Amino acid sequence: MANQIYSTTPRSTWKKGVNPDLDIERQNKSFDVERLTNILDGGAEFTQKRRQIESIIHSSPVYSIKNNYFMSQNQRYEAAIQKSVHYQKLMKQRGWKEDGAELRYINRALAGDTAFNIHLVFQKALKSLGSDEQIKKWGPLTENFQIIVTYAQTEMGHGTYLQGLETTATYDASTQEFVLNTPTLSATKWWPGDLGKTATHALILAQLYCSGRCHGMHGFFVPIRSLQDHSPLPGITVGDIGPKMNFEQTDNGFLQLDHVRIPRENMLNRFSQVLPDGTYVKRGTPQSNYLAMTVIRIQLLAGEFIPALMKACTIATRYSVIRRQSKIKPSEPEVKILDYQTQQEKLFPQLAKAYAFHFIDKSINEFFKESYQEILNGNATSLPELHALSAGMKAMMSDHSILGAEVCRRACGGHGYSLLSGLPSLVTKITASCTYEGENTVLYLQTARYLVKSYLQVQSSQGSLLQTTLPQSIQYLTSTLTDRCPAQKTADFLSPALYTEAYAHVAARLIRNSAHKLHELTSSGTDQYVAWNQTTILLIQAAKAHCYHFTVKTFVDSLRKLENEPEIYQVMKRLCDLYALNGLVSNLGDFLHDGYMSGAQADLATAAYVDLLSLIRKDAVLLTDAFDFSDESLNSALGCYDGNAYERLFEWAQLSPTNTEGNPAYEKYLRPFLKSNRSKL
Amino acid sequence: MANQIYSTTPRSTWKKGVNPDLDIERQNKSFDVERLTNILDGGAEFTQKRRQIESIIHSSPVYSIKNNYFMSQNQRYEAAIQKSVHYQKLMKQRGWKEDGAELRYINRALAGDTAFNIHLVFQKALKSLGSDEQIKKWGPLTENFQIIVTYAQTEMGHGTYLQGLETTATYDASTQEFVLNTPTLSATKWWPGDLGKTATHALILAQLYCSGRCHGMHGFFVPIRSLQDHSPLPGITVGDIGPKMNFEQTDNGFLQLDHVRIPRENMLNRFSQVLPDGTYVKRGTPQSNYLAMTVIRIQLLAGEFIPALMKACTIATRYSVIRRQSKIKPSEPEVKILDYQTQQEKLFPQLAKAYAFHFIDKSINEFFKESYQEILNGNATSLPELHALSAGMKAMMSDHSILGAEVCRRACGGHGYSLLSGLPSLVTKITASCTYEGENTVLYLQTARYLVKSYLQVQSSQGSLLQTTLPQSIQYLTSTLTDRCPAQKTADFLSPALYTEAYAHVAARLIRNSAHKLHELTSSGTDQYVAWNQTTILLIQAAKAHCYHFTVKTFVDSLRKLENEPEIYQVMKRLCDLYALNGLVSNLGDFLHDGYMSGAQADLATAAYVDLLSLIRKDAVLLTDAFDFSDESLNSALGCYDGNAYERLFEWAQLSPTNTEGNPAYEKYLRPFLKSNRSKL
Repeated sequence: MANQIYSTTPRSTWKKGVNPDLDIERQNKSFDVERLTNILDGGAEFTQKRRQIESIIHSSPVYSIKNNYFMSQNQRYEAAIQKSVHYQKLMKQRGWKEDGAELRYINRALAGDTAFNIHLVFQKALKSLGSDEQIKKWGPLTENFQIIVTYAQTEMGHGTYLQGLETTATYDASTQEFVLNTPTLSATKWWPGDLGKTATHALILAQLYCSGRCHGMHGFFVPIRSLQDHSPLPGITVGDIGPKMNFEQTDNGFLQLDHVRIPRENMLNRFSQVLPDGTYVKRGTPQSNYLAMTVIRIQLLAGEFIPALMKACTIATRYSVIRRQSKIKPSEPEVKILDYQTQQEKLFPQLAKAYAFHFIDKSINEFFKESYQEILNGNATSLPELHALSAGMKAMMSDHSILGAEVCRRACGGHGYSLLSGLPSLVTKITASCTYEGENTVLYLQTARYLVKSYLQVQSSQGSLLQTTLPQSIQYLTSTLTDRCPAQKTADFLSPALYTEAYAHVAARLIRNSAHKLHELTSSGTDQYVAWNQTTILLIQAAKAHCYHFTVKTFVDSLRKLENEPEIYQVMKRLCDLYALNGLVSNLGDFLHDGYMSGAQADLATAAYVDLLSLIRKDAVLLTDAFDFSDESLNSALGCYDGNAYERLFEWAQLSPTNTEGNPAYEKYLRPFLKSNRSKL
Repeated sequence: MANQIYSTTPRSTWKKGVNPDLDIERQNKSFDVERLTNILDGGAEFTQKRRQIESIIHSSPVYSIKNNYFMSQNQRYEAAIQKSVHYQKLMKQRGWKEDGAELRYINRALAGDTAFNIHLVFQKALKSLGSDEQIKKWGPLTENFQIIVTYAQTEMGHGTYLQGLETTATYDASTQEFVLNTPTLSATKWWPGDLGKTATHALILAQLYCSGRCHGMHGFFVPIRSLQDHSPLPGITVGDIGPKMNFEQTDNGFLQLDHVRIPRENMLNRFSQVLPDGTYVKRGTPQSNYLAMTVIRIQLLAGEFIPALMKACTIATRYSVIRRQSKIKPSEPEVKILDYQTQQEKLFPQLAKAYAFHFIDKSINEFFKESYQEILNGNATSLPELHALSAGMKAMMSDHSILGAEVCRRACGGHGYSLLSGLPSLVTKITASCTYEGENTVLYLQTARYLVKSYLQVQSSQGSLLQTTLPQSIQYLTSTLTDRCPAQKTADFLSPALYTEAYAHVAARLIRNSAHKLHELTSSGTDQYVAWNQTTILLIQAAKAHCYHFTVKTFVDSLRKLENEPEIYQVMKRLCDLYALNGLVSNLGDFLHDGYMSGAQADLATAAYVDLLSLIRKDAVLLTDAFDFSDESLNSALGCYDGNAYERLFEWAQLSPTNTEGNPAYEKYLRPFLKSNRSKL
């Protein structure tokens, strides 16, 4: 009986239609929402294809993610395996390729709740690091899922600093085998996805020892589980690393190797090889491996960060127009919380950021495709810029997406704290991105190193280095920038040229400052490496300012392509202005520091910023509708298209195991406790 | 067989002693750690008492929280009930009082993993809102836990705006009963703790209707579950609101009332009463109810925010001296990550904040005790300041503690993402505090309203209002502040007088700006309420600046009391400087805006700030040791006193249900999938 949900009269007040408070926001469109969706998808044909795939996925209960919030880690894992096995079969049936748009759409529909993601990483690594023979041997086995392979790089004691990895692969010429070993506890492989319970094989990154010395990190293809019964093979200790903030669906694992032997042929040997007698032969440098990190970081932008931010904006904006709370004028009814200036100032900069990042991602991808082709043709000039840019953009876009998603979550008050809102899981998932694929502080410093180097080149060339020969993203280092912001009135701050220049000025100043500080320290006798460490706070500021300038400039450039869509252009222009001015008012000190802007100008910028909020207000819901997330993939009681948030919250709560599994604590503890207290009356 | 953890040779590398990398940090103490612990505890006798209670709690397996990270929401709830029933018995046995230090120490030891917390809130509400007769009737039943009562205020559709609550209590003179009803879905009570599965009764806040009109919110004492079998009583629909970001141990519940009748005597009637014929009689205004919110907000500082921040600092700092990663000089070994300037800049401002908040809390409590006594004596002059201060401090200290805990979590990289680190649960728990007991944006605006009002009073008094008659926290509004910062060299920024004045200058300017903006808008014909909404972004800036000034000034004032402890004074002074300068460099725009500081001075401040980091470095571990959290209450694989982080992480992971409950997904999905793929060979 205890805790049964009891009601004398069932009261279903569920309105079947769209909540009128949300409906009215969709009247009087200032732009064509469907057209904007098409632009985001890259064309109407892609919107159609995406919806087709989403409808296939959503039509089958196998793919439902509705119960995710009620599941244990083990249940989430099992459900992800089930879904993944199903869609792999589906893809084979339909002839969809793993690098095609379909898988991207499937992932979007399933909100990333899938397995075998590292299996794909292995396939890429094999193609770039394996010999033709190895690709021929292991490629088909992997593609057909006859085996499942994980990519085991990170160790308990080492993440970003790969040179420090401790796992060893020692060549034994007597048997022509490599002996893989985990020499210390901290050398335990830790975190690889699909490792804990799924993979049959692992590509293990280990320090190669042969002919008496260490040759650095190489990749080794190692069977880890029996193909008969999936039990770990001799010498292998493997398992799951346990509970995490999110990613319950993924069996991130650990792995220890106790002198595990594999044939000589199992070292990936496109670029280096160990001959039978143990001679180490190097055939080239795997530049494409360096490039691989760049590729993965760029893929994260559109694959992980941007959709999470867009979803958070969608949920929070829809909720903010159906939630009424308190009054602006005492004589009038309670208002929609989106009508509060403070709520607008929380949400709209995130919305602007989501659009900014979308267009920036498109632009980076175009640049990347060009450069990639050049690199494959043997011209690697763009590689340093590409690397600096992908590092900085991964760091900045993950940082800002995390912050943005959390702002949206908090803007939904108490209901944003319920898992049923969908917001906590967006936040806890995306927050991992500041660490994976390169820790953000380390990445910013890589960008900073490139910037300082470029700055010194520009300086030493004394004008002989023409602006046009500099990589595009740092051309502002040679521009003759004005040293005073020319703004005289509020409207001046709606000029992209004006604010882009302001960002360039700040970035150039901060890069110069870091370089000077480094010079000052080394000139006064500080060791160059110590000087670098003592300058890192400044260097990170410089890298962040550079990244900010790049995003503002790129959003501005992208706008031009929309000039023939005047209605959409107008609303995107407002978001672009808001994006730029939000960054400006949030980092005012940078703009005021050397007198580039005055306090009076800062006030004008703030006024322009605040004015934009009320202009964007009327388009806010439409701008999130345009992201076109299905209710199923949003999986939010607060954020569904029809705006019936309270109804759904109430209905979903009833299904929670906290209600359906009874209350054993009553019989065990509460009843005896209350009874004994009462008997003392 | 699948996923069994298999090892050919068991390899326990667990070092039983303290990790030497942590041990060395505890040599060469610059201050007496135990003495600092005593100061934090309020005296050596309290340290002793706390440790005594902690040792009682930790000696019994009933109170262990070690398995928390592996438990479902239902299991967490059950464990919390079990613990709470146990310690309630323990308290009775030992004669410990509910408002004594013991319960505080128990809560600290159990990391808040307890039930019946709202039961205590009810007891306080009863004392302030109930008549003597009601206190006599229900007080003992509650104190002896013969019944369990929750406090049901928040509804699905209303949180902070209490006037909007929809639940009704209509008086029926024919039977002398109140009829409690939930008229709409959004009127469903939502969030009260202990409601979902535990409480037998609820204090329900509802709009009172009698003699034909609404008399506003009153409290009603309502039985909700059978005392026989705990089943919901007729007309009651009650349950749990489902999964949340944290607080799994608490059964936050929902409640709907379908014309539930209670006797006339069940309205709490110290300040108002309904006579048998339905006449409403008001006897006074429950000012103490207004005061009650203030009390609760102040209790949160030391009860929730500060310990969470201190724990996060402890874990991250200890981990940062045993984690070695990458090199500063290529020729030397990998360094402790705490030796990186960037890591210091992440952690030390949080450490400074934790100490700052501790001393600020002490100071607020002293002020509160004085004012409380005055208010009880009929002098309520300090109430507005007290309310503004408690609102602002709750908002600021929760915001900053959330940010600080998350910075610590991220500073631990991938391992900080594992629940076993203890950091995610600190973050997800404390992040709720921006919403509960008053949403932070709303609270900041309450403080701002007080500030603008005070500013206008000062202005209109034209000098006749003496500084001494102004409440202390806003005395700077009448000070004749300089309009240029006098700093000329780095060391000048280590002057508390200098930076406190700078903060006062900024706060005064921002309050003045907001008041002017409001005036400007209303003068030009904008409705006063609309003008308020249009100024809220500025008002919040002003409130934040005021709070920041208050914290800096209070930390500075607290330091003076440590002057007779020179060693501790020195290290606290550095933390105070760091706290102030961190706020300054993070909000530089505020200080540069009107030319109060120049860019050159900002650079001096930054240099002083950076210099402090390396000074604090050598004391960092000792400063977190002084918080004196037991390993059991930290419950962190990364942050234990002995620094054996990797050993513990590995050991704890083995215990995870992801390893102990087998891998049914293999038999169900993976085996058939792999088999069918292989058969196609």
